[in-house]
Amino acid sequence: MQKIRIGIVGYGNLGRGAEIGIKQNKDMELVAVFTRRNPDSIQLKTNNAKVYNIDKAKSMINDIDVMLLCGGSLTDIPVQGPKMAELFNTVDGYDTHKKIPDYYATMNEIAKKSKKISIIATGWDPGMFSLNRLIANAILPEGDTYTFWGQGISQGHSDALRRVEGVKDGLQYTIPISKAVDAVRSGKRPKLSVKDRHKRICYVVLDEGYDQNKIEQEIINMPNYFAEYDTEVKFISQEELDINHKGLPHGGYVIRSGVTGENNEHNQIIEYKIKLDSNPEFTANILLAYVRAAYRLNKEGQTGAKTLFDIAPGYLSILSAEELRKDLL
Amino acid sequence: MQKIRIGIVGYGNLGRGAEIGIKQNKDMELVAVFTRRNPDSIQLKTNNAKVYNIDKAKSMINDIDVMLLCGGSLTDIPVQGPKMAELFNTVDGYDTHKKIPDYYATMNEIAKKSKKISIIATGWDPGMFSLNRLIANAILPEGDTYTFWGQGISQGHSDALRRVEGVKDGLQYTIPISKAVDAVRSGKRPKLSVKDRHKRICYVVLDEGYDQNKIEQEIINMPNYFAEYDTEVKFISQEELDINHKGLPHGGYVIRSGVTGENNEHNQIIEYKIKLDSNPEFTANILLAYVRAAYRLNKEGQTGAKTLFDIAPGYLSILSAEELRKDLL
Repeated sequence: MQKIRIGIVGYGNLGRGAEIGIKQNKDMELVAVFTRRNPDSIQLKTNNAKVYNIDKAKSMINDIDVMLLCGGSLTDIPVQGPKMAELFNTVDGYDTHKKIPDYYATMNEIAKKSKKISIIATGWDPGMFSLNRLIANAILPEGDTYTFWGQGISQGHSDALRRVEGVKDGLQYTIPISKAVDAVRSGKRPKLSVKDRHKRICYVVLDEGYDQNKIEQEIINMPNYFAEYDTEVKFISQEELDINHKGLPHGGYVIRSGVTGENNEHNQIIEYKIKLDSNPEFTANILLAYVRAAYRLNKEGQTGAKTLFDIAPGYLSILSAEELRKDLL
Repeated sequence: MQKIRIGIVGYGNLGRGAEIGIKQNKDMELVAVFTRRNPDSIQLKTNNAKVYNIDKAKSMINDIDVMLLCGGSLTDIPVQGPKMAELFNTVDGYDTHKKIPDYYATMNEIAKKSKKISIIATGWDPGMFSLNRLIANAILPEGDTYTFWGQGISQGHSDALRRVEGVKDGLQYTIPISKAVDAVRSGKRPKLSVKDRHKRICYVVLDEGYDQNKIEQEIINMPNYFAEYDTEVKFISQEELDINHKGLPHGGYVIRSGVTGENNEHNQIIEYKIKLDSNPEFTANILLAYVRAAYRLNKEGQTGAKTLFDIAPGYLSILSAEELRKDLL
């Protein structure tokens, strides 16, 4: 079997997750990791794979089938995506929901011109959650869709927390409120404010000489991040933070509560739920399934930007269409 | 907007569910129901839609865009599918898992020749559950997939029950065993026998003059249907059966329990769950989403048999690709 030759751009949590994930897929191999750091500072866990400066990528168009973009959505992907799409099939987990239409337009134009495929905005939200929202909405046109995130660490809210003067280190967990989840599951279709859906717990390590009460007030009243929520602040030691909060668990739910029947008398509930010990490894594995799709679609002659909505699920599986019909249908 | 003109073949629970479901989709209209019964015996709930003998269908190729096959999988669809695929785009919920590859081959050949699309084996299992098995397997290559059905009425087992001499009427509920579901959710990846996964409860109305104990023993020891399970038999009156068991609720779960990490140290759980007040109405709504897909795919010039695995999710939604990227991604 000709393996899919993969390059990874960016070696943070997601890139490292992708390296591990590639080993689970016997039709894939990691060729190289591309970084803006000093390549010598990175030690891979894959024999034969190389680490290069990101500028080296353009000389490797014959060595790599799909480039997996594992940088951040704020500043990395908007720059690296368009550059890489000129040369390679790409897959990314671009997750700035509001800017997806613009990013799609940019990537589509470039990938059409380079005759490559760029699959954008995969992962779990955007990603699997989006897919479930779409399909559940199509199946149950009369209804409401509810998305809950967590329990898990929110990177954006943790960053906001750490910008508060006097906060030495900290993390923020987003937690869905069980009462709300249960009400949705029951078919009640409740109206839920943001506060009704999620609460926030902050673990904070204080700098010396700062006042707990003052910092706590500053956090829970921070607009856009915490003021609209029930927020709990727990002060802990750096040691405790490092020991108990270094994992990257996450999870969440998409629930569609719909009705059918002549008089809408039948409740119909669809729930998609994930519970993750490692958010980046799970996300990376989703991206890898779409790497397979990008590779196959481009082999068939398709070009341009795609989202999960444009890709038939069969492209994600290592199994053939015949095997899928026989074993999984 | 040009509406999708739909014909329904067969007016049982599924066909009636489809008629109701069409009203929820503003891009669809019901043109006619085709039946082998006397058309005058059927009273539709849709203004302007007609009831015809099934033989009339062949004269209506210019009036119907997609024919929805709502007959049974045992004897109806294997005959009606190939006939209709010669003339129309078709969608069905063919659910004899073992025979799907053969049925696909037959329908594919005919639909290629007639230049139509035939989407086969949609619904929820085969259907949404299959889709979730496929995607979850692709995302988590290391893991196990568990499917639980119920609580809900199993038609096959209810039929078996009613064939027992002395059973006047009866129904059988398949019930997933919570202990097993919880063990799977915990990430334990238990080995589960059929008996560990589901139990069966039979509600039986006895004919006069028969012995409860004898009938109970006959049921719980019936090979292939009940002997492998913990089966409970409850004797009730016809009146109680009619009042309390005439609904068609159902449900179930597909759970993928996988691992990631250098040493497989991270459990990752994906769960898809449905809870239905009306199984046929839910199933019909899934078929209708695939009616939309069949219509669009054929407009694009695609032909032949397809399963859900071959169809990009965007085709299921009434929204445009731009709207989907903006609002649901």
